Amino acid sequence: MATNRSNVHGSEPDTVAGNGLLHRRMFLTVGTAAAAAAAGAALPNPAAADALSVEPWMKLPGSGFVGYGQPSKYEEKVVRTWNTAPGTTGTGAARTPHHLLDGMITPNGVHFERSHSGIPDINPDTHRLLIHGLVKRPLVFTLESLGRYPRESRVAFLECGGNGQLLYQKEPAPVGVQAIHGLVSCAEWTGVKLSVLLQEAGVDPKAKWILAEGADAAGMSRSIPVAKAMDDALIALYQNGERVRPSNGYPMRLLLPGYEGNMHVKWLRRIKLTEGPTMTKDETSKYTITLPDGKSLQFVLPQEGKSVITQPSPGLTMKGPGLYEISGLAWSGYGRVTKVEVSADGGKSWALAALQLPVLSKALTRFRMPWRWNGGPAVLQSRATDDTGYIQPTRDKMIASRGDRTIYHANAITTWAVSEKGEVKHVYA
Amino acid sequence: MATNRSNVHGSEPDTVAGNGLLHRRMFLTVGTAAAAAAAGAALPNPAAADALSVEPWMKLPGSGFVGYGQPSKYEEKVVRTWNTAPGTTGTGAARTPHHLLDGMITPNGVHFERSHSGIPDINPDTHRLLIHGLVKRPLVFTLESLGRYPRESRVAFLECGGNGQLLYQKEPAPVGVQAIHGLVSCAEWTGVKLSVLLQEAGVDPKAKWILAEGADAAGMSRSIPVAKAMDDALIALYQNGERVRPSNGYPMRLLLPGYEGNMHVKWLRRIKLTEGPTMTKDETSKYTITLPDGKSLQFVLPQEGKSVITQPSPGLTMKGPGLYEISGLAWSGYGRVTKVEVSADGGKSWALAALQLPVLSKALTRFRMPWRWNGGPAVLQSRATDDTGYIQPTRDKMIASRGDRTIYHANAITTWAVSEKGEVKHVYA
Repeated sequence: MATNRSNVHGSEPDTVAGNGLLHRRMFLTVGTAAAAAAAGAALPNPAAADALSVEPWMKLPGSGFVGYGQPSKYEEKVVRTWNTAPGTTGTGAARTPHHLLDGMITPNGVHFERSHSGIPDINPDTHRLLIHGLVKRPLVFTLESLGRYPRESRVAFLECGGNGQLLYQKEPAPVGVQAIHGLVSCAEWTGVKLSVLLQEAGVDPKAKWILAEGADAAGMSRSIPVAKAMDDALIALYQNGERVRPSNGYPMRLLLPGYEGNMHVKWLRRIKLTEGPTMTKDETSKYTITLPDGKSLQFVLPQEGKSVITQPSPGLTMKGPGLYEISGLAWSGYGRVTKVEVSADGGKSWALAALQLPVLSKALTRFRMPWRWNGGPAVLQSRATDDTGYIQPTRDKMIASRGDRTIYHANAITTWAVSEKGEVKHVYA
Repeated sequence: MATNRSNVHGSEPDTVAGNGLLHRRMFLTVGTAAAAAAAGAALPNPAAADALSVEPWMKLPGSGFVGYGQPSKYEEKVVRTWNTAPGTTGTGAARTPHHLLDGMITPNGVHFERSHSGIPDINPDTHRLLIHGLVKRPLVFTLESLGRYPRESRVAFLECGGNGQLLYQKEPAPVGVQAIHGLVSCAEWTGVKLSVLLQEAGVDPKAKWILAEGADAAGMSRSIPVAKAMDDALIALYQNGERVRPSNGYPMRLLLPGYEGNMHVKWLRRIKLTEGPTMTKDETSKYTITLPDGKSLQFVLPQEGKSVITQPSPGLTMKGPGLYEISGLAWSGYGRVTKVEVSADGGKSWALAALQLPVLSKALTRFRMPWRWNGGPAVLQSRATDDTGYIQPTRDKMIASRGDRTIYHANAITTWAVSEKGEVKHVYA
């Protein structure tokens, strides 16, 4: 690791941790030498004249208006990728390409999806939502009648309980952030608070759980504590401003901020108030955490604190030494991210990343850290802490507490190794 | 107005202003009679059995995964509409359908666009950004080299200087929120701070303005004070997480939070540091405010404080008396919205709307107000105040100060009249 030695903490004014991590102030102070040198990424002056050449697209009028726009044709690689599980059409999961995105909002076109029997083609005019079971008065809502109730918006992440499951494998999967952590996304959701509807129905004090059922062919169903339903649960009707997408539950889905993804039941058709959990197939045969001794944890509901570096990451080859931004996403189902630390030397030293404001509870949080790569090997990691004090564990610690017989709630630190060629690989460290 | 009398302030426990405006607490207090009655919008019990019938889409597997998703086919009316101005292809503006959206984020597919010669088909690999003029060292950036600089994200509204121009007409245009106010949208933008690039170029102290030029066939160009460029200007590369859309400036655009829309130059190719403004065609022949005496105000840069009710609004017919949510958008180019007041009696009485958190500076802010419509005539208005103390003017006041010879910066209060049939019309009041 001789190549790293020149860049350990203190060797350069703005260094904040080993192997080239830099303080953000170098970009905030006008006229510093560091800022002037900056990335050194701008092209040399002689190229300036070229930039003034009139490109072909300036020589003729461009295209006209369309009702609903699409990304540039040059961005056709920015798409979800999927695997299909045994079962009917569309059984499986399609993953968000986080290595090609930035910010905290996931665009609707590439929000992850997990379907158990494909995407139902629901006519919103005939779709109904029933609230029944242990209530004073069963209620039925049309989309139109729901639209008369007061709404709320909130930015919230959604993460499949199985996201990150490759981290349970004995050997590091030779893949990137989309394959490993692509089952988390974040949107601004708008809808009606479930508590308002439950109040109208009149909940029997004996009811401690609800059953939420989807209108897909799998009848995907989960049990949810009434306390969560009365707290911040939303019947989501809009996603990033427009109606919820078919793959995300059109015309309505449950939103349970911070909770395991499949509990946010899509294509929501029925909520039944019950004394205990219903023990559906989706919370018994699946979505339980099997421990080394063969026993399983059931109803592990919030997704734990977690983070991952999205740039650089596998598939994004670095082109020569110099300044880069290390950037990634952090989140916690327990609340707000308070701190993300980044290491470029495999966890030997850490530095605080900048958190992009606003930092919202149970939403993705973008973190950023300037890094001067010296062209030598580097081992990149990030570690999130939330406002309950929960700290994202190392992989060793996660395996020590849960074993490797499960595929759920994998929130360990993910490690990317950068080679001298600038290639980035998934490794264990 | 006899039908209104029963609902004036104080006649019902949760009334907060004339003609049925209600306090939000009626939905926050568990078990109140008001909450139990709620919208009265749920269907009666006998319909409950129907909701349990198995709809056709539950009887067969749904559709499979796609790389880049689209809205439901049932939402095909949620599209931009446009007028074309004299000129080349795509000269004109396409408007956001705010009456059909909710939340603060505008989905990328319907973000408004204003083009002066269509949308150029730019190859991101050959596109260049030049910074030159009064600088120590001219710089040229490729998209890739720009990608090495530290980034920032911020949620910001963009509003065309001509948005709302129908309010200058002598008679109220018989149209709705999309036609009148559809040239404002809001997204999370991510990119590189312009100040970082200007520092690297080394700005000559004589330079007080920049010229920003687009790579469209119109060569759309605007002059911007250096102070703004060094403050919060961003070279935006991402829009709601994904690359900026072609209609919004792919592969890069200028973002000047709060400033007049066309200054956020799309398809940005050149920034020139200059002593004074360049006086381009786009800031002399257009985008100036002509006063009654024939003189014109030039460089009126921030968009003033403004709001508009989006639901209910023309095109959304109300179906019978009862509870509704009045909802809309507020924003200010000066800063943060601190207050939105709503009136249901044409400005005779006002009540404070709830502001959806987080309220962000120079971003759209969603406001909400419960309303029990008694089935009689109502006149709906909203009025925004920002953190500089600026209060959105009435139309009379706007016309009194600016006359009606201009089409720019129309930020007056917009009025919707609700008839006894539940039809909503644009009126002056």
